[in-house]
Amino acid sequence: MSTSYVSPAPYRIALAMPRDVAGWFFPPAVLDALPPELELLSREPLESFDSPEAEVILGSVDGLLTCWGTPLIDASVLDRAPRLRTIHHAAGTVKPHVARVCWERGLQVTSAADENAIPVAEYTVAMVLLANKKIFQLSGRLHRERTAMDPQALFPGMGNHRKRVGVIGASRIGRHVLRLLEPYSLELCVADPYLSTEEAAALGARLLPLDELVATSDVVTLHAPSLPSTAGMISRALISALKPGATFINTARGELVDQDALAERLAVGDVYAVLDVTTPWVLPEGSPFYELPNVLLTPHIAGSLGTELERLAASALGEASRAARGEALLHEVTLAELDRMA
Amino acid sequence: MSTSYVSPAPYRIALAMPRDVAGWFFPPAVLDALPPELELLSREPLESFDSPEAEVILGSVDGLLTCWGTPLIDASVLDRAPRLRTIHHAAGTVKPHVARVCWERGLQVTSAADENAIPVAEYTVAMVLLANKKIFQLSGRLHRERTAMDPQALFPGMGNHRKRVGVIGASRIGRHVLRLLEPYSLELCVADPYLSTEEAAALGARLLPLDELVATSDVVTLHAPSLPSTAGMISRALISALKPGATFINTARGELVDQDALAERLAVGDVYAVLDVTTPWVLPEGSPFYELPNVLLTPHIAGSLGTELERLAASALGEASRAARGEALLHEVTLAELDRMA
Repeated sequence: MSTSYVSPAPYRIALAMPRDVAGWFFPPAVLDALPPELELLSREPLESFDSPEAEVILGSVDGLLTCWGTPLIDASVLDRAPRLRTIHHAAGTVKPHVARVCWERGLQVTSAADENAIPVAEYTVAMVLLANKKIFQLSGRLHRERTAMDPQALFPGMGNHRKRVGVIGASRIGRHVLRLLEPYSLELCVADPYLSTEEAAALGARLLPLDELVATSDVVTLHAPSLPSTAGMISRALISALKPGATFINTARGELVDQDALAERLAVGDVYAVLDVTTPWVLPEGSPFYELPNVLLTPHIAGSLGTELERLAASALGEASRAARGEALLHEVTLAELDRMA
Repeated sequence: MSTSYVSPAPYRIALAMPRDVAGWFFPPAVLDALPPELELLSREPLESFDSPEAEVILGSVDGLLTCWGTPLIDASVLDRAPRLRTIHHAAGTVKPHVARVCWERGLQVTSAADENAIPVAEYTVAMVLLANKKIFQLSGRLHRERTAMDPQALFPGMGNHRKRVGVIGASRIGRHVLRLLEPYSLELCVADPYLSTEEAAALGARLLPLDELVATSDVVTLHAPSLPSTAGMISRALISALKPGATFINTARGELVDQDALAERLAVGDVYAVLDVTTPWVLPEGSPFYELPNVLLTPHIAGSLGTELERLAASALGEASRAARGEALLHEVTLAELDRMA
């Protein structure tokens, strides 16, 4: 998969992303500590590929570091970047930033999607543990009612022992969720059309059809890619099938879920939801999701933020270093993968 | 430590605990599935040792299963239980239920404290992950303000990467917290006066003096036993030393913490707290802990509840089976340990 490109001189890299993004991912401390095989052409990131500065940098760059907000790298950019061999995306999804022509012209593209899966899986693990114990409900009630309560009478069957957790999608995130949940006494299940029973077992999980997984799990957590073919995959029928007491966690995309059907089922009050993503992205002020006591909304924070961005930047720079040293890249995105990715 | 006691006949056991507790821990399904080496003398639990039924059962019982609310087993109980060899507590703390005389007369006492540590550690792991990401704060703000927000601007330095987690007490729970947090990119530290640097390293943690741990950790979580010598150990001075942005988690006992000093520091608003226990047990309606937006209260639910009780019952019954078969017990509580236990 990797070509062996050995550069005698340092590998010339440049940042192509908005200035604020560059400040979060590649602060001065990171830029000051670049390894000797990398030569940063400018500490100023390219916010656009159409400036005079961009012309100069594109003329000599070997590897571009991209991130949130990087403008599309298309044929017109490649035409002005004769030495460009690698693109290292310091975030998850390369699709909006890297045009198909980059692969067609033989460039190697890497992404930090593996590292980006980590915080999403961590968020999910925390929410699974709290959901089975009904901790948000009990905490809310305690702050409101300010009196003693009998948790077991309120939530018979609460607890994290022998509960079924259903993971939808054996994606990077879904797999990491399964890995992190292994030390708990939970029954792990997974639904994924591309996974075999044996592959599921190797992930520590039981493979189930999607409808059975949704109907029998105590927590259902969604980690499928957002593609035309997956839009609305969590349908009204599936949402009706959630078992009473179950919690639905969405850290993927609102578009995967029939939002109206979810709101209607949640209004019944017999299931719970933890939603880090919704459609639309920011809900209108009158959305029932804000009001319902069985819904916990978070503002799209399951992914990498704050110190977690350091991990993504380090991953992208690590790939650039491997390219500089002519080593195999570890996180390459191929054209075949692109079509199955979010 | 264990004596080899081989019983030719089934080992006669009885439940000694309130009826509702027996129903939670030892429901009919559990009692119907007892192994052949155990003979349950009555499906009715002994709620007291002073009834006519108790006289009969004590007269022939080999092993008593105890739990929350079991009355004290003292010399007067032992005098009426000539065959009694073992006491199997299906919960954590044996102190209120088993008098010193039981050990003095050679009985073996077991507890389910190892199993009881599991849910407390799981609760802690979830809260650590959410605390570093400021998820409760961001979620609360989203539900209140119903608008887009910039999490990184609100909480610079948020994230679960390279944060320091300080565990106070290498107790069963503290050790399990360290074990469960191992797969995360967190810096684990521990403070415990009985632990060596090497023992801490074997737990994957760095040993720190208590004051340094409290002053430098992003999350401080308390897992020390509640003893006369530990009352108020989280003093006003330590609470003032918490670094801005830090979260303090208490799943141990309110008595370990200077509650007034904690309330005063929290009122400043620069630190956070997750409190599953407080002093008093149920806070008065006017307590500031109910109101402060940086405090998450939960109603003493970190420990075993619901399905998690099955684990404790299975542990106690497993010990009774080992006693019946003359095998070494796995979770024996010795008199020496008793004095160091909560």
